[in-house]
Amino acid sequence: MIAEKMKNMVANSSAIRAMFEEGNRLAQIYGAENVFDFSLGNPNVAAPESVKNAIVELLNENDPVVLHGYTNSNSGYADVRETVAQSLNERFGTKFAGKNIVMSVGAAGGLNVILKTLLNPGDEVIAFAPYFGEYRSYTNNYDGVLVEISPNTVDFQPKLDEFEQKITPRTKAVIVNTPNNPTGVVYSEETIQKMASVMEAKQREFGTDIYLISDEPYRELVYDGAEVPYLTKYYANTIVGYSYSKSLSLPGERIGYLVIPDEVKDSEDVLAAANVATRILGFVNAPTLQQKVVAKCINEKTDISYYDRNRETLYRGLRECGFDCIKPQGAFYLFVKSPVADEKEFCAAAKKYNLLLVPGSSFACPGYVRLAYCVAYETIVNSLPKFRELAGEYF
Amino acid sequence: MIAEKMKNMVANSSAIRAMFEEGNRLAQIYGAENVFDFSLGNPNVAAPESVKNAIVELLNENDPVVLHGYTNSNSGYADVRETVAQSLNERFGTKFAGKNIVMSVGAAGGLNVILKTLLNPGDEVIAFAPYFGEYRSYTNNYDGVLVEISPNTVDFQPKLDEFEQKITPRTKAVIVNTPNNPTGVVYSEETIQKMASVMEAKQREFGTDIYLISDEPYRELVYDGAEVPYLTKYYANTIVGYSYSKSLSLPGERIGYLVIPDEVKDSEDVLAAANVATRILGFVNAPTLQQKVVAKCINEKTDISYYDRNRETLYRGLRECGFDCIKPQGAFYLFVKSPVADEKEFCAAAKKYNLLLVPGSSFACPGYVRLAYCVAYETIVNSLPKFRELAGEYF
Repeated sequence: MIAEKMKNMVANSSAIRAMFEEGNRLAQIYGAENVFDFSLGNPNVAAPESVKNAIVELLNENDPVVLHGYTNSNSGYADVRETVAQSLNERFGTKFAGKNIVMSVGAAGGLNVILKTLLNPGDEVIAFAPYFGEYRSYTNNYDGVLVEISPNTVDFQPKLDEFEQKITPRTKAVIVNTPNNPTGVVYSEETIQKMASVMEAKQREFGTDIYLISDEPYRELVYDGAEVPYLTKYYANTIVGYSYSKSLSLPGERIGYLVIPDEVKDSEDVLAAANVATRILGFVNAPTLQQKVVAKCINEKTDISYYDRNRETLYRGLRECGFDCIKPQGAFYLFVKSPVADEKEFCAAAKKYNLLLVPGSSFACPGYVRLAYCVAYETIVNSLPKFRELAGEYF
Repeated sequence: MIAEKMKNMVANSSAIRAMFEEGNRLAQIYGAENVFDFSLGNPNVAAPESVKNAIVELLNENDPVVLHGYTNSNSGYADVRETVAQSLNERFGTKFAGKNIVMSVGAAGGLNVILKTLLNPGDEVIAFAPYFGEYRSYTNNYDGVLVEISPNTVDFQPKLDEFEQKITPRTKAVIVNTPNNPTGVVYSEETIQKMASVMEAKQREFGTDIYLISDEPYRELVYDGAEVPYLTKYYANTIVGYSYSKSLSLPGERIGYLVIPDEVKDSEDVLAAANVATRILGFVNAPTLQQKVVAKCINEKTDISYYDRNRETLYRGLRECGFDCIKPQGAFYLFVKSPVADEKEFCAAAKKYNLLLVPGSSFACPGYVRLAYCVAYETIVNSLPKFRELAGEYF
C-alpha cells in the first residue's frame, strides 16, 4: 500500500547505505578493526574543539527560548545569514547580503528546496556522470527528469560537447559538484568558463533560463593547494548549495545553506519560493543551535591534513598493488578502475577480504568503484595487505 | 521562472508567518512590550534546564565523530529509537520496538515523510476543519488531494457523519490533530472510537487501507487533568507523528518521530519506505545531537502550569470583554468567534491596538480567529485593556 514511486525507491535503496549497514554487520562478526569499510562519506576526523566550545558558550549566553525557537524567517537567523554572506564576500570577492542566504538542513535539504522551487513536472536537470546518485532521487521528488552526460574517464572533467548537445528548451537546471563525489576531481577554471559560455549561448538560443546549481559540500577539502573556482563569478544564474557536514564534520547535525545571488534570474521570486519551500517541505527552518554554531565557527575547519595523509597513503598503496586510479585533488574519495568490467563482481570479491567498496553504477559510471577514505589512518594502513591479496586475483 | 506550483504558494504564503513578521516590524516601531503578538505557536516557556545539562553531558561524554555523525540508519540512532519505544510502552501500554520508531525533523518533517511514503497522485487525504493549514501544503507536495470535513462550531469535535460520507475508494489517509491547533480541543475517547469504526467499515466496504495519521505535537500540553487517547489502541492502521517542539520547547531544533506500529497494514514496507523517504527528501537523518538530547530528557517536559495560567487569564479576560470562545483543554491556542462575519476585518481592527491575531480562514474556518497564548504572562495581562477597547467597537 505504499506509493508506487516509493516501491522502486525501496527496491533500489541506496547501495551506499546498504554497504554501510553491511559494514556494521561484519564489524559485529569480525571486530571493527578487521573490517575495512570504505563505503560511506561519514567523516572520521572530529569536529574542531571550537564547535564544542561554541555550543557551550551559546547555551550559557543565550535565552533558550530564542536559541531553540523558530527563527523569525524560515530562511534562518538574520545575523547568521549576514555572517555567512560576509564570510563569502571576504573569501571570494562576491557581494552577497544576508538576504541572499537561505540556511538549510544540510546540502541535501538545500538541494531539495531549490529543486522544489524551480522544477515543473517534466523539466530536465542535467548531471555529469559520475555523479552522486541522490541527484536522481531529488529530481524525481519534483517530477523532473534527470539527463545524464556520460563520464569522461580520462580525467573526469565534464564532457562539454555532449553537454551542449543535450541542453534542450526543457533544461531547467544543471547540477555540478566540485570537488566531486565520487572522483575527488576539482573542475578547472577553464572547464567552468567553457561550461558557462555553453549555457549562456543556449539560454540565448532557446530564450530560457538555465540555473547552474553548484553542490559544494567538499569545497574546503582540497589538497596540493588546489583552487576551487567560486561559480557565481562565472555564470550569473548560479545557485550554490553548501554544507558544513564535511568542513566542520557535522553531517548528522544537518546544517548548510543556499546562496541565491541577486544576479540570478527572478532572484526575488526564487528567494521567496525557497523560503516557502523550506517551510512546506517540513524543514521549517535549519536547526537553530547549529545555525548559531556555524556562525561562531565561520573561519574554522576540520583537520584536512588527516585526510591528505589518508589520500596519499591509500593512493600510493593501491597503485603499488596494480590498481588504476587518478589522484584526486579534493573531497575524500578515490575512484578506482575495476580490474573486471563488472565492478559489482569486483566489489563482491573485495568483500571476501572485508573490504567494502561502492560500485560505480551507483554514480552512473560502471566499471569503477568508490572508496571513501574519511576513515581512521590505521584502517588505510591495515587494509593495504588485503588490497594486495585482492589484487593477486587479477594481476 | 519558479515552479508553477510555487507561484501560488508564494502568493498565499502563510498568513501566520506573515503576521509573525509583522509583529517583529511593529515591535521595532512601538517597542516589544507594546505589541501583543498572538500569531505564532513559538513557545515562550524555556526548555527545561535538563536540556542544557543533557547537551553539555553529551558533549563531554561522547566522541564527536559519533555524536555529530550520520546515524547508521536514516531512521535514527538505534538506542534513541528504543528509548522512545519503551517510554511509549510504559505510558500507554503499547508494544512498540525501536524498529517502529523513525526519528524525524520535527512533526512537519515526519508528516512529509509519511505522506511521501503513502500517497500516489490523486489520493485523498481527509482533514477536519479547523485544521493546521500546512496539511494542505504537505498533501500537495505529493500530488494528493486534501478533502475537508466542515467544522462543527458547537464543540469542535469532528463531524463524523460528514466524514463517513466523504470517505471514497481514493481515501488513503486521514489526519487528526488532538489536542487541536487551532481550537485547543481534545478529541474525546467516544469520538475516537466512533471514528475508528467508521474507518474500519469503510475499509471493508471498499477493500482499501485507510491510514489514520495522528499529528501530536501538543500531546503533553493538556489542562484540568484531560486525557488524550493514544490512537494506535483504537485503530490498527494508525501512524503517529510526534514533535518535541512544544513538550520540550525546542521548535527550532527540528526533532520528533513517527511511530509505525506492526499492526499497520504492510508495516514493514511502510517502515522501509519511511526510511528511504527520510533520506531522499533531504532530511537524511534527524539532527543527531538533538536525538540524543530527547532520549536523555525522555521524562521531562516544559512548565505546563505557565501555559495554564495564560489560558485561564486570557480566556476569562476575553469572555469578560464579551468575546465568545470555548475553553480549550489542550495546546496553547484560543479559537475566538469573530464579532463580525469577515474575521479578516476583525483582525485588521485588532491590529490598530497592536493585537496580532490569525484569521480562521487559515485553518479552513472563517468567522473565527486564533490566539496563540504561548507568550509572556505580562503580554496577556497587558493585552486585556486593548481587547476591551477592541470589544468596545462591537458590543
